[in-house]
Amino acid sequence: MQERAVRTRQLLLQAAAEEFDACGYAATGLSKIAKRAGVTVGSLYFHFESKEGIAKAVMQAQPQSIEPYLDTQGLQRLVDITRVWAQQLLRDPLLRAGVRLSVEQGGFGVHDVTSFVQWRDVMEECLRDARESGELLPGVDPAMVAEFIVSACTGVQLYAQLVNEREDLPERTVEMWRLLLPGIATPGTLPRIDLEPRGES
Amino acid sequence: MQERAVRTRQLLLQAAAEEFDACGYAATGLSKIAKRAGVTVGSLYFHFESKEGIAKAVMQAQPQSIEPYLDTQGLQRLVDITRVWAQQLLRDPLLRAGVRLSVEQGGFGVHDVTSFVQWRDVMEECLRDARESGELLPGVDPAMVAEFIVSACTGVQLYAQLVNEREDLPERTVEMWRLLLPGIATPGTLPRIDLEPRGES
Repeated sequence: MQERAVRTRQLLLQAAAEEFDACGYAATGLSKIAKRAGVTVGSLYFHFESKEGIAKAVMQAQPQSIEPYLDTQGLQRLVDITRVWAQQLLRDPLLRAGVRLSVEQGGFGVHDVTSFVQWRDVMEECLRDARESGELLPGVDPAMVAEFIVSACTGVQLYAQLVNEREDLPERTVEMWRLLLPGIATPGTLPRIDLEPRGES
Repeated sequence: MQERAVRTRQLLLQAAAEEFDACGYAATGLSKIAKRAGVTVGSLYFHFESKEGIAKAVMQAQPQSIEPYLDTQGLQRLVDITRVWAQQLLRDPLLRAGVRLSVEQGGFGVHDVTSFVQWRDVMEECLRDARESGELLPGVDPAMVAEFIVSACTGVQLYAQLVNEREDLPERTVEMWRLLLPGIATPGTLPRIDLEPRGES
């Protein structure tokens, strides 16, 4: 794609995310997305074939809101993914909309596991690195643990959203790790993992 | 309420659950619920003030699908709640609809944390019993752990639903406990906890 087309697509994705984050899937119209992005509806249809198509693109853009902030490896990287995620979910419309649509998708007739699998793959890679560095207890299965972390994070953010609009999500994420790490990390690795909520980056 | 009114309310709740489970909130109409229950729409309005009202009642009926099956205490009871829940989610429309509506509620403009708090309270009580029986590691906070288990179960069932219609939810629930118990239970308690998926009851 040409540079301008790439930029327009990103503008549309961002505009769609802002609408979906604020209003949900059902109440969001394509003309409102196009208007917010400053492009025509025809241009929107050049980039996305339908409302469902743009919603799926928003859902699948989640990891790109996190990965630029990471510079660690292994188990610390896995923890850091969730620390950055907990902070970004308070303020990044693209991530917020992606999470919202992924959770609510059954309500508007979409069934797309892609975003969950993307997260699973990113996390499984961290756990495989951790295994190679000797950070994991014997018997810990990277794929299984990665699926559980994705699942648990999904549930933790939903609970936090319902009780306090996710205000304490960073602390809930730390508590999750305090519970989980003894079943995952070797005793020698445990004290080296930095769990404090990650501040503004 | 008179016995007949109680029975009619239960029929309506069951009929609503079957519709919500199969079609979701948006596609379910009150007249279809009334027809399925074999009552008039007027009778439905005598028991529930709106579609939102009956959806909230379905969401809040979740624990009643589980508690009759439990006869254990403390940490084993907490594990058993999730084992029965994982089995019942494969076949009980009232529980399935309650979970579905609780997760998707943001998509139809409802914000009701009640069902999550109900589960939190049930689980926190198990953890307080476990604490009194010396089953918990020092520093384990029953309220915090209970909120995490509710959150994790919510996410685990959503993930399982998207990948295989929850077919392996009982096994995922066991894996969750294998990961979590080392951070919760004393070493002496661990081998006494029965984790096998609970069969048909």
